[in-house]
Amino acid sequence: METKQMAMRARQAAYEMANLNAGIRNAALMGIADALDRNSQALFEANRTDLVRSQADGLATSLLKRLKFDQEKLSEVVSGLHSLVGLPDPIGRTQLATRLDAGLELYRVSCPIGVIGVIFESRPDALVQISGLAVKSGNAILLKGGSEAMETNRLLAKVINEAGCQFGLPDGWIGLMETREAVGQLLAMDDEIDLLIPRGSNEFVRYIMDNTRIPVLGHADGVCHLYIDRACDPEMAITVAMDSKTQYVAVCNAVETILIHSALSEKLLPELAKALRDAGVQIYGCQRTCAAINCDPVSDWHTEYLDCQVSIRLVDSADEAIEHINRYGSGHTEAIVTAQEETARHFLSHVDSGNVFWNCSTRFSDGFRYGFGAEVGISTSKIHARGPVGLDGLMTYQYRLLGHGQIVGEYAGGQKKFIHEPIDRDYPL
Amino acid sequence: METKQMAMRARQAAYEMANLNAGIRNAALMGIADALDRNSQALFEANRTDLVRSQADGLATSLLKRLKFDQEKLSEVVSGLHSLVGLPDPIGRTQLATRLDAGLELYRVSCPIGVIGVIFESRPDALVQISGLAVKSGNAILLKGGSEAMETNRLLAKVINEAGCQFGLPDGWIGLMETREAVGQLLAMDDEIDLLIPRGSNEFVRYIMDNTRIPVLGHADGVCHLYIDRACDPEMAITVAMDSKTQYVAVCNAVETILIHSALSEKLLPELAKALRDAGVQIYGCQRTCAAINCDPVSDWHTEYLDCQVSIRLVDSADEAIEHINRYGSGHTEAIVTAQEETARHFLSHVDSGNVFWNCSTRFSDGFRYGFGAEVGISTSKIHARGPVGLDGLMTYQYRLLGHGQIVGEYAGGQKKFIHEPIDRDYPL
Repeated sequence: METKQMAMRARQAAYEMANLNAGIRNAALMGIADALDRNSQALFEANRTDLVRSQADGLATSLLKRLKFDQEKLSEVVSGLHSLVGLPDPIGRTQLATRLDAGLELYRVSCPIGVIGVIFESRPDALVQISGLAVKSGNAILLKGGSEAMETNRLLAKVINEAGCQFGLPDGWIGLMETREAVGQLLAMDDEIDLLIPRGSNEFVRYIMDNTRIPVLGHADGVCHLYIDRACDPEMAITVAMDSKTQYVAVCNAVETILIHSALSEKLLPELAKALRDAGVQIYGCQRTCAAINCDPVSDWHTEYLDCQVSIRLVDSADEAIEHINRYGSGHTEAIVTAQEETARHFLSHVDSGNVFWNCSTRFSDGFRYGFGAEVGISTSKIHARGPVGLDGLMTYQYRLLGHGQIVGEYAGGQKKFIHEPIDRDYPL
Repeated sequence: METKQMAMRARQAAYEMANLNAGIRNAALMGIADALDRNSQALFEANRTDLVRSQADGLATSLLKRLKFDQEKLSEVVSGLHSLVGLPDPIGRTQLATRLDAGLELYRVSCPIGVIGVIFESRPDALVQISGLAVKSGNAILLKGGSEAMETNRLLAKVINEAGCQFGLPDGWIGLMETREAVGQLLAMDDEIDLLIPRGSNEFVRYIMDNTRIPVLGHADGVCHLYIDRACDPEMAITVAMDSKTQYVAVCNAVETILIHSALSEKLLPELAKALRDAGVQIYGCQRTCAAINCDPVSDWHTEYLDCQVSIRLVDSADEAIEHINRYGSGHTEAIVTAQEETARHFLSHVDSGNVFWNCSTRFSDGFRYGFGAEVGISTSKIHARGPVGLDGLMTYQYRLLGHGQIVGEYAGGQKKFIHEPIDRDYPL
């Protein structure tokens, strides 16, 4: 099917999705989970075809690993679908209710955004995750996966679409685009697509952000910082630093730069350096750090290593740390270790990032750890959604005003006056 | 001062603005109001210079009217500043509080977006309004006004800046750009400006939206619809239609197209046509409407007349009306007049616009009428803010996590488990 036609079908389906009750959407989620289980062997086979072809094409080992869709990945996504069923329905929540005047009631009601575009690299499990989020939130989706996962994606989309429709989702609620031109077409469809979610490498996300007028939910960089204050428990500082850097190096909420108060250069700095080096982490330092622990100089404070590497800088105050972070950070996650509440308060309220932590690891920055139940992504934008984004990120709202023939002329003319009092009930229709 | 330098000063000022307490920001609002009153004669004189020059330059009468800044306009903006003081402080509100585990507390706290860029045509009162909103919300602002209002804008910005700083706002919290190149520079500063608010004609706003990567708060078009259902009180239908179309024709929430159930073509349609024509409104119709009331055919259902003109179309069902609206509307405001609750429910939940009304005029779509106290603008976007936008539209939030040395390793390893329970207190720092 042509891209444009698919988008118009999705738009139409979106109106119907928004009006399905929670029972149907939850049943569809269960039905999709079952269908995936039932078709597991065919899915694994399609994935083997992709793996064999991609290996022959010379795809990097790390990408082959992400391309793999086996029983473990299937179990994960199926359990993800089940957990979505248990979450409260995000549609139709009354967010505000005001009586403008007798018999003139204003309600702000949550509703789905409409059509979500998803562009993802490699990982076919992303297709299942995002389809599940779309069903739960009542949005239609248009998907474009990487050509390396072509066979897996095609079968996944078919199984998910058929199961969804069988349980009452409207035709066209999910569309998979396969042509080479589809990415460009998706990026240009700002009339048809309300929100884009890219899933892939930083370069990939940056490319998407730079080449579309559609709002993008996500982040390109995660240049996270940890500041170790003069007044800190050194043991806590080292524990938090090690977890922030080494617990999982390839993720966006791992620390890339550690800022250390210069009063700690003689004792804590060498201890931390030893712990980092023992864990196989290579250190790059500012001039004073290099002098203190003999390491290579930092080439660029903007660097996101995503690897066993870290930058260290000595600073003379919390304010210098804050300035460094606001200058070089990407607005993702920053932490301070300090025993002083006043310093923590100042740091948390002056650092301009989505997530700011006191005395704990940057690695906590995550929708599941935050208890959101589902994660749509992590946003470094300040508009719409910031930080880890749950189902709310796929919702917007609508003002609904219920009257009895009221006109503005009477209020403009002074015959009637607005009363603006809160109403203690939910949207009644 | 150079544009780039001004933007960097604003960014720095934004960090300080975000941390001023409400008392200082409210005192600054009062101080600015007083300073404007004190400098009224100089302001009116500057404005006369602008008016004389613009008249000589041949500026259209309607634009000259908007350019005028006299005692009436001054009193309006000063009273607007006073009313901002009375609104609750939008900064530092706890939106969510969750105990992730013992001694590990997550708070979501509201904070200003940062640097707001404002580009406006003609009306100097817009400069005062938006400066007041920025102070109340703790944002820094960069302004670019039209060259026709140069002298007025320059003096307004000077008075507002000096009064603000005198009451404790940081240097650089407001910046006025005056060069011809400034608009292009503003639009390109997506690293320095977090949100753009354009104020001016539709073409002007459309131009801004099409030429920047910065998120834009606003709307270009207001193609609003009224659907008159078969089952309606004809008197109410005509009253609501007349108010929606004629109460003030030049505004975005006035109706441009009236959709009427075809069963009403013999009685209600001619009655409404007579009322509209008596009020000086020219009617353009679909084929059936033209046949029924003898009018010119509609040339384009997308047209926003903003004038004493209206399009009328006969439809055979509420669904046909909904389809028309979702196809030709701009997502602003749509109303239905019907006596049937089920039809109203269906209409309100299927029309994809920011504001959907039952049995009342489209003209109610407005932040002041909604009781928001202040209006930043009306948004037809579904992202960030939709419909009339109050101070909330200038706010974002930050996740703040307070711990005691917790690391993710212990949770990933299973030694500790998240508890995710709500906390019944506000952010404590």
